[in-house]
Amino acid sequence: MRIIVDTMSGDKGPQEIIKGFIDASLDFGIEVLFVGDENMIKEEVSKYTYQKDKIEIMHTSEVIENSDDPVASVRHKKDSSICQGLNALNKSGGDVFLSAGNTGALIAASTIIIKRLKGVRRIAIAPLIPCQDGCFMLIDVGANSECTPAFLLQFGYMGHIYMKNVMNIQNPRIGLLNIGKEDGKGTSLTVKTNKILKNTNLNYVGNIEAREIPFGAAEVVICDGFTGNVVLKLLEGTGRFMSNALNKIFVKNFFSMIAAFLLKKSFLEFKREIDYKEYGGSPILGLKKHVMKAHGNSDSKSFYNAAKQAINYFQSNAIEEIKNNILQFGVVEDETESL
Amino acid sequence: MRIIVDTMSGDKGPQEIIKGFIDASLDFGIEVLFVGDENMIKEEVSKYTYQKDKIEIMHTSEVIENSDDPVASVRHKKDSSICQGLNALNKSGGDVFLSAGNTGALIAASTIIIKRLKGVRRIAIAPLIPCQDGCFMLIDVGANSECTPAFLLQFGYMGHIYMKNVMNIQNPRIGLLNIGKEDGKGTSLTVKTNKILKNTNLNYVGNIEAREIPFGAAEVVICDGFTGNVVLKLLEGTGRFMSNALNKIFVKNFFSMIAAFLLKKSFLEFKREIDYKEYGGSPILGLKKHVMKAHGNSDSKSFYNAAKQAINYFQSNAIEEIKNNILQFGVVEDETESL
Repeated sequence: MRIIVDTMSGDKGPQEIIKGFIDASLDFGIEVLFVGDENMIKEEVSKYTYQKDKIEIMHTSEVIENSDDPVASVRHKKDSSICQGLNALNKSGGDVFLSAGNTGALIAASTIIIKRLKGVRRIAIAPLIPCQDGCFMLIDVGANSECTPAFLLQFGYMGHIYMKNVMNIQNPRIGLLNIGKEDGKGTSLTVKTNKILKNTNLNYVGNIEAREIPFGAAEVVICDGFTGNVVLKLLEGTGRFMSNALNKIFVKNFFSMIAAFLLKKSFLEFKREIDYKEYGGSPILGLKKHVMKAHGNSDSKSFYNAAKQAINYFQSNAIEEIKNNILQFGVVEDETESL
Repeated sequence: MRIIVDTMSGDKGPQEIIKGFIDASLDFGIEVLFVGDENMIKEEVSKYTYQKDKIEIMHTSEVIENSDDPVASVRHKKDSSICQGLNALNKSGGDVFLSAGNTGALIAASTIIIKRLKGVRRIAIAPLIPCQDGCFMLIDVGANSECTPAFLLQFGYMGHIYMKNVMNIQNPRIGLLNIGKEDGKGTSLTVKTNKILKNTNLNYVGNIEAREIPFGAAEVVICDGFTGNVVLKLLEGTGRFMSNALNKIFVKNFFSMIAAFLLKKSFLEFKREIDYKEYGGSPILGLKKHVMKAHGNSDSKSFYNAAKQAINYFQSNAIEEIKNNILQFGVVEDETESL
């Protein structure tokens, strides 16, 4: 198996990406194709011991920055690591493509180069997020700011298939993020979607409220990409806020430093339990091939975990099952197709 | 000053409401009109020492439950505590009405009985939420699931006036909750609203992302009621989740119990800092009179704090200033008025 990795992305520079994937290559025996500036990659790679036949480099001369316009950058920066990495994936030069770069550009380039599976209306970014007793998939978190009930229905099916085939959860509970449990609650989007989801063969547990999310109310939480992005970033922000606050409390005085020492192990355990870096990468579901998005802020550990998840995703038959099922189950009339 | 209080609301029963407001009456010298089942209120009130001339009771025979349909319940339960309390406010039988009951019914009844200020398109529920170094106002959190740019512009002005006049923040920073900092980011709603807000005399700091919220990115955060409700409930859920997790860590073993003892004071301080109960009640802005919503889960301390906030709100000239300014500044063409 071979993972194609965009080294020109990520807020912490190529060091973390390259370290994470060299470690993963050693531990899991996978091949890695690093895409980006050749000299820079060579220099980084030379710092490590690795199996020569497992690591390859593909030089690209352009970089899509986070501030670049997604569609324009995909059109004009043909020799960027995102475009060339996806081209390599498309021509079977690898099995999975992973990038921590400009999300909009990755979505646009994936749709143009890899293409959607037949019948899939919109692709979706679907991270796994830790919660009480495990994790859940939030789908979508930003590929589609505005959605129709038909999109959300398909997100439900794609999430179901991923959690079943990749995460081995037999009949994942599917919930619709809403602002109340009752049927009439929310926007016209959530009211209609709730009605549609009730008439599927999914294990639909109904509307769920945001306060239930951390307690594991469902294994797949469906929402439009705007709301999902807000949820994801708020979880990130509150996590960082709490972590800062605890650190301040622990250095307050002599007694609190003793307490911090006594609690260190338990806190590290808890931090790992709720660390989104444990899952590393988010699949972009609905595409013909395996594309994953890593968090911009990822470190080498996070990229290492993303590699693990890429392996599980590739070894499952999730894409095959989406392809075979989406036209059978995941389609409803869409009054607002123009969206 | 006299506060009209719905005693038939709140998840914890009338005990907490009545205790909170009797304490507030003693400490701040305010009059309170308790609305609800007379016998029940009399029994509760008799448990306390209070100034006889400050506490009055108005009997009502019906209760709007949380599960009731908002509009239907307002139409059919005329003798409910919400409807009769608002009628009393409308006939100047008090200065502020406060309820912890069915939000939809409170919004519907307020709009029908108290009515919007001239020029206000939609009323909004606007809680104060603790964050680093203070608090911010989130507007709206559920009065309007679907919004237009014209609604959000007015939320900005109403939030500005509240924070200036009631919270004494001279030129409050106004932010638009969005999924990216750049101008083109988000839905058509946020793209248009961002453009409009830039051309106002508000202290508009631009799009803000959810991860910045806990760090106090703005004193007024504008969003549609669906997104705001998700944010509010997610903050509540993550707060409870973290609190549960810490409690588990603290009782894990002998050493962690020692640590818990050493940290007790610091943790209680921190908990108070981020406790939404510190603010107790949310103003419903855009109405002709002072109506406040308390969290269903409030305890007596929270109702006591809500009384404090009601006093500050009433003593400010926020409503007068909204009335005088909204037609001058807070109006734009609205292409989608039908929403």
